[in-house]
Amino acid sequence: MDRTKALSIVKEQITEKRYIHTIGVMETAIQLAKEYGADQKKAETSAIFHDYAKFRPLDEMKRIIVEQKFDARLLQFNPELWHAPVGAYLVEKEVGIKDAEILNAIHYHTSGRIGMTLLDKIIYLADYIEPGRNFPGVEEARELAHVNLNKALIYSVRNTIQYLLNRNQTVYPDTVDFYNDLVMKGEDVG
Amino acid sequence: MDRTKALSIVKEQITEKRYIHTIGVMETAIQLAKEYGADQKKAETSAIFHDYAKFRPLDEMKRIIVEQKFDARLLQFNPELWHAPVGAYLVEKEVGIKDAEILNAIHYHTSGRIGMTLLDKIIYLADYIEPGRNFPGVEEARELAHVNLNKALIYSVRNTIQYLLNRNQTVYPDTVDFYNDLVMKGEDVG
Repeated sequence: MDRTKALSIVKEQITEKRYIHTIGVMETAIQLAKEYGADQKKAETSAIFHDYAKFRPLDEMKRIIVEQKFDARLLQFNPELWHAPVGAYLVEKEVGIKDAEILNAIHYHTSGRIGMTLLDKIIYLADYIEPGRNFPGVEEARELAHVNLNKALIYSVRNTIQYLLNRNQTVYPDTVDFYNDLVMKGEDVG
Repeated sequence: MDRTKALSIVKEQITEKRYIHTIGVMETAIQLAKEYGADQKKAETSAIFHDYAKFRPLDEMKRIIVEQKFDARLLQFNPELWHAPVGAYLVEKEVGIKDAEILNAIHYHTSGRIGMTLLDKIIYLADYIEPGRNFPGVEEARELAHVNLNKALIYSVRNTIQYLLNRNQTVYPDTVDFYNDLVMKGEDVG
């Protein structure tokens, strides 16, 4: 899909602040796709639509998770996770994007999963390090991102898990699976 | 089983250092059982036998995990986890202990699990805080143990997960399930 058209579609769904974040994710994802040999157009489209469902009402997201038989554990964990699988579903249904790689990159951009594809990894990381992000550790993640994709991902997901542990919050099992998968495969692979 | 007999059986299976640790776990577990109203005799027996399989050869432990159809993921994770389920199996088979509560407390004393029983929790925590233990955070865990069992457990399992993350080691999913289960139920429950 044409970038201007895609951006105009997503702009109607999200706040101005989130739209600026989306532009940052898009630019970062295209840059990472260049560096790591991924499809730049798919990176662009995945990034533009990654937060498509971010501002949907919780009850609508809950209903979709149940009806579409997404992982039922989602409902026990932080609702911040819900917009990712719900977004993939709505981007297909409402925008008509059918590309499974793009839809998966949107679906797993918050939780991660075992066996993340290169595109999944790029969107996850771009979302974490885009220029508007500002939290302890983001500079280290940014630097690693352009040196070693998997090292940057391990750093980022570890930082996320530690953040949750320090706040006595639950950690979604897929996120730990993602971390373990990266560690088991070795940081320098992929 | 009589304490003296139980101790003499386990003494043949483990090193002197580990035997001293076992005595510490036994005394701590009995004390916690008193404080939290658990069966003191079951706490004693579980503690005495919790490390029964600690020094079995890795290939024997691996074979038992496969043959007994224990969680196959164990083989992908740290072998330090293996002696717990294997120990429960061998304590039943070789020592003749049939009590399911005791066997479960041994089985889950390293990983934890969703829905830990009071006895499971006491053995897990006694193993973590017995007087011979010396690592950052053990004093805080010891203090909490006599105030609020679940708070002490959350503190301990969080500390364990953070230790693993900081060393770029994998985290066994059951341990995260245990942590999440405690957080979801609330620290002051149970």
